[in-house]
Amino acid sequence: MSLHPASTQPYIRTVYVVSDGTGITAETFAHSVLAQFEGLRFKHIRLPFIDSVDKAADVAARIDQTFEADGKRPIVFSTLVNSEINTRVRQANGMFLELFSTFVEPIEAELGFKSSHSIGRSHNVANTEQYQNRIEAINFSLAHDDGQYAKGIENADVILVGVSRCGKTPTSLYLAMQYGIKAANVPLIPDDFERDSLPSNILPYKSKLFGLTIQPERLSEVRHERRPDSRYASLEQCRYEVSEAEKLMRREGIRWLSTTTKSIEEISTTVLQKIGLEGRFY
Amino acid sequence: MSLHPASTQPYIRTVYVVSDGTGITAETFAHSVLAQFEGLRFKHIRLPFIDSVDKAADVAARIDQTFEADGKRPIVFSTLVNSEINTRVRQANGMFLELFSTFVEPIEAELGFKSSHSIGRSHNVANTEQYQNRIEAINFSLAHDDGQYAKGIENADVILVGVSRCGKTPTSLYLAMQYGIKAANVPLIPDDFERDSLPSNILPYKSKLFGLTIQPERLSEVRHERRPDSRYASLEQCRYEVSEAEKLMRREGIRWLSTTTKSIEEISTTVLQKIGLEGRFY
Repeated sequence: MSLHPASTQPYIRTVYVVSDGTGITAETFAHSVLAQFEGLRFKHIRLPFIDSVDKAADVAARIDQTFEADGKRPIVFSTLVNSEINTRVRQANGMFLELFSTFVEPIEAELGFKSSHSIGRSHNVANTEQYQNRIEAINFSLAHDDGQYAKGIENADVILVGVSRCGKTPTSLYLAMQYGIKAANVPLIPDDFERDSLPSNILPYKSKLFGLTIQPERLSEVRHERRPDSRYASLEQCRYEVSEAEKLMRREGIRWLSTTTKSIEEISTTVLQKIGLEGRFY
Repeated sequence: MSLHPASTQPYIRTVYVVSDGTGITAETFAHSVLAQFEGLRFKHIRLPFIDSVDKAADVAARIDQTFEADGKRPIVFSTLVNSEINTRVRQANGMFLELFSTFVEPIEAELGFKSSHSIGRSHNVANTEQYQNRIEAINFSLAHDDGQYAKGIENADVILVGVSRCGKTPTSLYLAMQYGIKAANVPLIPDDFERDSLPSNILPYKSKLFGLTIQPERLSEVRHERRPDSRYASLEQCRYEVSEAEKLMRREGIRWLSTTTKSIEEISTTVLQKIGLEGRFY
């Protein structure tokens, strides 16, 4: 079940991410840091839920085995906050980068407060209000995906509009999952262009609308993957729809951005900035 | 549009996250670090896409204004890799924590390679194969949510099963979005318990099944939010369904975990560990 076949290029070093929680934050961070070493391949191993000295001993043994096998000490990104557990792991032959303590200590000095050094605090805890908001937003975004289920759309924080396959659905789900934002999405379809009007059910919420657009050439590629050689995927149809959608959005004064070369994260960040929700969530 | 009303508790310090990319990784990381200061409230401001010296000057001005207003220097988590931009921002009166360079320099020394110091490399770039896999997985998980659209389910990497509202949908979407895993989900419903058998369409894929379960009391709460005072939400019904689902999973030899007190991230991490997909993605 190798989903993303490993590159044939040999890896330069094994990288462990060791955490008392899920290690997801640390893993994402490690990827960001190592992405600065362009062209080098690393072998990543995440070891989550390391919350006892026994588990720490297993981790240390594993790091030592890798050192033997690779002939080079592994790089270990660690977010262990318990000092006994951390000390045990550090007995292994690795290069240790302590993500939390590196920054917690100077912040303690700056604030004049001691940190709580408590385990597994890095993630939203289930059943908190903030966590419930995220789950609620995911359910909302799913229920209001692709123009379905118009009831309740007035509760949306943002309503994404644009032609079919321009990136509305993944963006809506990301906004919900990452930020607890209730993001509906409604397609602009040829019917709307013929009537020369936005879908009637979203007309009352114009201030919540945000448009996504895309280069017709890229749209045609994306649509061909889904429905090869269809009229729907033809470059001519894509050009028509994108041009009409942009005309409509321009006339209605809807802000929009092009998704052509942007990742979900970049689209979402830009949407948040433009609709002024950025930074309201803490 | 204040979605999560601010606490009445005053914040102890303003925290900026300054990035040449989206800043999402840095923001998540900053939250993790500051979560170690239990009980203290911070005001978070993310400033993404700071990719020119002009923008850096604006950021510096903003940090200085905050210093004036708060009477305390802001904490600035920064992932600026361009040294000219970074130097300009650092002219402001803040406490600077440089997330990347703190670790990149020791890794350079360890590897004997220089990093590329290139901007905006921390995220998956749109249109790479890995990014396309994520988008494809999101579409797959949506199409195979809640037992719908059985066609193609043989391409799933994992099929989550469990009673209605036990957490299958958010977990499937998270696995797809974060890891590019094609996660289908299929509910176990009273019909299945009466027939005393798994749904027939997933029987051929038993090795891909992973069960989620939940305490009946918690399930009843969750269901009451969706359908207040329904039979569906009654504690009696929840007890019946959970007990039958666990019996079925036990008999069929399906691995499972309880979601009751777990976040999506914790559930997903555990699923990945148990099905052995952990660490296969790099």
